[in-house]
Amino acid sequence: MQYETIFQEIYRDLQPLEDPGQVADYIPELAHVDPYQFGVHLTTVGGDKFAFGDAEKRFSIQSIAKVFTFVLAYSHVKSNIWERTGLEPAGTPFNSLVQLEYDKGIPRNPFINAGALVVCDILAGELASPKENILSFIRRITGVDSISYNSGVALSEKKTGYRNYALINLMKSFGNIRNDIDSVMDIYFHICSIEMSCKELSKAFLFLANNGIVPHSGEQILSASRTKRTNALMQTCGFYDEAGEFTFKVGLPGKSGVGGGIVAVHPEKYAIAVWSPRLNRKGNSYKGMLFLEEFTSKTRSSIF
Amino acid sequence: MQYETIFQEIYRDLQPLEDPGQVADYIPELAHVDPYQFGVHLTTVGGDKFAFGDAEKRFSIQSIAKVFTFVLAYSHVKSNIWERTGLEPAGTPFNSLVQLEYDKGIPRNPFINAGALVVCDILAGELASPKENILSFIRRITGVDSISYNSGVALSEKKTGYRNYALINLMKSFGNIRNDIDSVMDIYFHICSIEMSCKELSKAFLFLANNGIVPHSGEQILSASRTKRTNALMQTCGFYDEAGEFTFKVGLPGKSGVGGGIVAVHPEKYAIAVWSPRLNRKGNSYKGMLFLEEFTSKTRSSIF
Amino acid sequence: MQYETIFQEIYRDLQPLEDPGQVADYIPELAHVDPYQFGVHLTTVGGDKFAFGDAEKRFSIQSIAKVFTFVLAYSHVKSNIWERTGLEPAGTPFNSLVQLEYDKGIPRNPFINAGALVVCDILAGELASPKENILSFIRRITGVDSISYNSGVALSEKKTGYRNYALINLMKSFGNIRNDIDSVMDIYFHICSIEMSCKELSKAFLFLANNGIVPHSGEQILSASRTKRTNALMQTCGFYDEAGEFTFKVGLPGKSGVGGGIVAVHPEKYAIAVWSPRLNRKGNSYKGMLFLEEFTSKTRSSIF
Amino acid sequence: MQYETIFQEIYRDLQPLEDPGQVADYIPELAHVDPYQFGVHLTTVGGDKFAFGDAEKRFSIQSIAKVFTFVLAYSHVKSNIWERTGLEPAGTPFNSLVQLEYDKGIPRNPFINAGALVVCDILAGELASPKENILSFIRRITGVDSISYNSGVALSEKKTGYRNYALINLMKSFGNIRNDIDSVMDIYFHICSIEMSCKELSKAFLFLANNGIVPHSGEQILSASRTKRTNALMQTCGFYDEAGEFTFKVGLPGKSGVGGGIVAVHPEKYAIAVWSPRLNRKGNSYKGMLFLEEFTSKTRSSIF
Repeated sequence: MQYETIFQEIYRDLQPLEDPGQVADYIPELAHVDPYQFGVHLTTVGGDKFAFGDAEKRFSIQSIAKVFTFVLAYSHVKSNIWERTGLEPAGTPFNSLVQLEYDKGIPRNPFINAGALVVCDILAGELASPKENILSFIRRITGVDSISYNSGVALSEKKTGYRNYALINLMKSFGNIRNDIDSVMDIYFHICSIEMSCKELSKAFLFLANNGIVPHSGEQILSASRTKRTNALMQTCGFYDEAGEFTFKVGLPGKSGVGGGIVAVHPEKYAIAVWSPRLNRKGNSYKGMLFLEEFTSKTRSSIF
Repeated sequence: MQYETIFQEIYRDLQPLEDPGQVADYIPELAHVDPYQFGVHLTTVGGDKFAFGDAEKRFSIQSIAKVFTFVLAYSHVKSNIWERTGLEPAGTPFNSLVQLEYDKGIPRNPFINAGALVVCDILAGELASPKENILSFIRRITGVDSISYNSGVALSEKKTGYRNYALINLMKSFGNIRNDIDSVMDIYFHICSIEMSCKELSKAFLFLANNGIVPHSGEQILSASRTKRTNALMQTCGFYDEAGEFTFKVGLPGKSGVGGGIVAVHPEKYAIAVWSPRLNRKGNSYKGMLFLEEFTSKTRSSIF
Repeated sequence: MQYETIFQEIYRDLQPLEDPGQVADYIPELAHVDPYQFGVHLTTVGGDKFAFGDAEKRFSIQSIAKVFTFVLAYSHVKSNIWERTGLEPAGTPFNSLVQLEYDKGIPRNPFINAGALVVCDILAGELASPKENILSFIRRITGVDSISYNSGVALSEKKTGYRNYALINLMKSFGNIRNDIDSVMDIYFHICSIEMSCKELSKAFLFLANNGIVPHSGEQILSASRTKRTNALMQTCGFYDEAGEFTFKVGLPGKSGVGGGIVAVHPEKYAIAVWSPRLNRKGNSYKGMLFLEEFTSKTRSSIF
Repeated sequence: MQYETIFQEIYRDLQPLEDPGQVADYIPELAHVDPYQFGVHLTTVGGDKFAFGDAEKRFSIQSIAKVFTFVLAYSHVKSNIWERTGLEPAGTPFNSLVQLEYDKGIPRNPFINAGALVVCDILAGELASPKENILSFIRRITGVDSISYNSGVALSEKKTGYRNYALINLMKSFGNIRNDIDSVMDIYFHICSIEMSCKELSKAFLFLANNGIVPHSGEQILSASRTKRTNALMQTCGFYDEAGEFTFKVGLPGKSGVGGGIVAVHPEKYAIAVWSPRLNRKGNSYKGMLFLEEFTSKTRSSIF
């Protein structure tokens, strides 16, 4: 299928729409991003590539990295993740702290901040060099060695990350953080700072569309069953308080980040990454969501 | 595929497991159900049928009926459902009332009690004879005219339904209930009392696997797009506080009820209904969940 | 002391202040009250009387009546009130329903709506003719036989009281309401509709300043110890979410109502009632609060 | 009055009661305290002293110190305390974090942990040497120079204080903490570690019973009006989630600490301190509460 033509059409249709979204501005590195950039890249399990716009420009992947750390913990590590985090959607953002308190320090799922902090704590305890290991994992599944942390972003995240410190301290008070808080936060702030392009992201997520196997290398990252389960988890928990809306309108599992990126997976077929920096009020890319809704409508590629 | 053989195998595998679940006992009609009954029925979009156990015995479908009323409202009615209910997972049951208060009377989705009450209020306002119209809709999509309300169950629900009265009064205080409370509750308690068999349920849900078209009659209930969206909604919101778990383990959209029934849909392929009266602590059929998990594993039929 | 001169001075000082408050408008009977009315009346335990303004004009006492029903239950009835309601301040109004849910249907104290409903349920179960008995109690302690319900107000309260119906249904679902909901609500809506003047209110509360004895009749309503405890309860729970503020600024136990009335008690000395219909955002009389703050400052009559 | 006889009588009456309370055990220094110790000391504004039991033995005053820091901030400092903390009772402990979130980082009052942290932040910003200044203030109002911090306790508090770190980080994320978190926490953990005897505590609180003037030195700590307001605040907020109960049963303003100490003030008359290490489930001294209830009953000294 000529995906690039469809990309162009949708982009043209969305152009006249006023974008009410706001670029994330809690750290200067994100606030200064040009809001008019737009990129999309689709990679099929067969290796075909379709790109449009700023598809090779790197941006801050932010929470999209939570999928990488979760997959690492789910694939390599013996400790039972599900004793330390749930797998249910989180409900309203307002409730994040009270639910953590009500559930005695067990986060609702590994893709909200609290859950990602627990995953970082698991990796801190079981990997030899967590930050290096995470990076080498991402480089391996993309085949791109230049992907790296942005230490300026990591530092800015740390300086302003009081709410994340509140979450980790609350979980530590319940015994659900095993390692030193600063070392876990160091991993967390670094993974948020990873920079990748749409092209790299769509390639990185391709194993999730391919029964757990990286197409270009043949490496089995997860079993077929665990791959399906990871996709299922993205479907219900990948979009903060907008997982229902994304599932309803787009119909694919995926994950978003406040850098404006969204990745979605069509099992057996492809992974697609889209990037538009302005965020809606729920913290997801405004035009990215619209683009993917149009895309799955036009291509009838919802999994439902 | 020989689904019946697989049904037998899974049933045999689950037999020795102790079932820690409890039959719903808040009304006598549910409390007195024989807990050892078990039935399953799968109907393909092509019309093939596979049954096992008590597949033709009727039971109280309870919350499964919320899909029927939602589809009716979504298909027939002009009023905008999404101004009056959200489409996000509900979070913890503990939060039901506070979220309703926080969101000023707008329920999280149409499949929790509060949302189903809003849907009943919509139908009360726009259908000529809501209770008759709902029943005739179900009879039409199943082709079975004997499906009906159990007025004893409806009366028992009404007598003990204080929490539902709390929900509807709270929503009414915010202006999100337009009709007389008693007339809306009358519809609600009646739909909870509908009795159907696994065979009838799997047939009733078949249009959701068939792009909105009832296979046996060719009637288009919903557009293809709205059908996908209804499935998406069941995926994120169909299992109370266990939607994540069901999605993770079973990988199909579906809906459960406290009568012990679960229906799941595999788009383009089939609808399957399973019934086992004992409920886990989240209110979903304990063995029904396990059965469907095993079934989609063995048949590799998760949509993810 | 020449209290009347002080009343005049404070009234004059408050005159130029713009009153940002709003008259309660959820029922027409309250909405149509002239907002510029103002009355105050102080009665000493020795029988001296000091009045200013519209001190003899009756208004809707609303939640002030919760003290009368509580005292009746506390004095006459064998059932243990404290098994069915707490005696702690309520926290934010936002939390009312979630706290009721968290505490399994036990209200925080008898002066919030939920607690007053439980008190009405107790009276419904133990008094022969609750509505008549409550009225005759108030007539006895004031010596004024013309005090009565306003049935129009009671009816309006009932027509708009959805939130109160939500509260009572939620408590009933936890088993903390024993009688028929409609009969309890009938008592509740009627006590809210009682009409009294500042003069009558200050006389009615005088036994709380007099060790439980009605000065004009010598009747012992409560023991000295229970009288102190009732005052203590008004101190911590008498002003919705503003009990701390009232205690801090006024320094006397008291109770307010959305009709704009406030009564306060100085143990061993006097009871004072003030009335100004405009309410601040917390639902207490804006000028009434200011008046009492000034009054206890000028007369140095805080109990602290 | 022969208070010492009354002390003996009450002590004798309470002896046979089984104490279901538990010594605080979250740090070893508190866990190892002999639970059978008991002391009480009353000092009148006229200088009379009445003691019983371990009245001169020092213990960890813990949260009682929050009154000292609040008074310091309220008396010396220009910044408006009430813009940064409320003065309402806190509601359930369960809600502490959600209320802080709902109220955008403004604690309910200065006597809960979050509010005391804000007070420490105010002192950190406005005092030259906060820890020294606080200590010298306490030494001045007691006339005892040996009162000091227990640095071992302060260190243990710091090591286990994750929940307090969660609170301060959450407030910092809302901008309600101005200074460096570690420096504020250092003050906070130190004030919790102060050790005083019942005798010293009753003397320290005497200015609150004496219109703000320290009897032995004549120093005016607070104006008469602010003294009354501080007492009012202790009344509604001094006992965590048990302020209503303490007000109801004891009828005096006061403050408790998890070291098992309670101080109460009778305006114009006396301050009394009692110490018994075992705490009830709300974190207040079990026998200390009972002792004060009996004491104010026998002496009829409730302020209500």
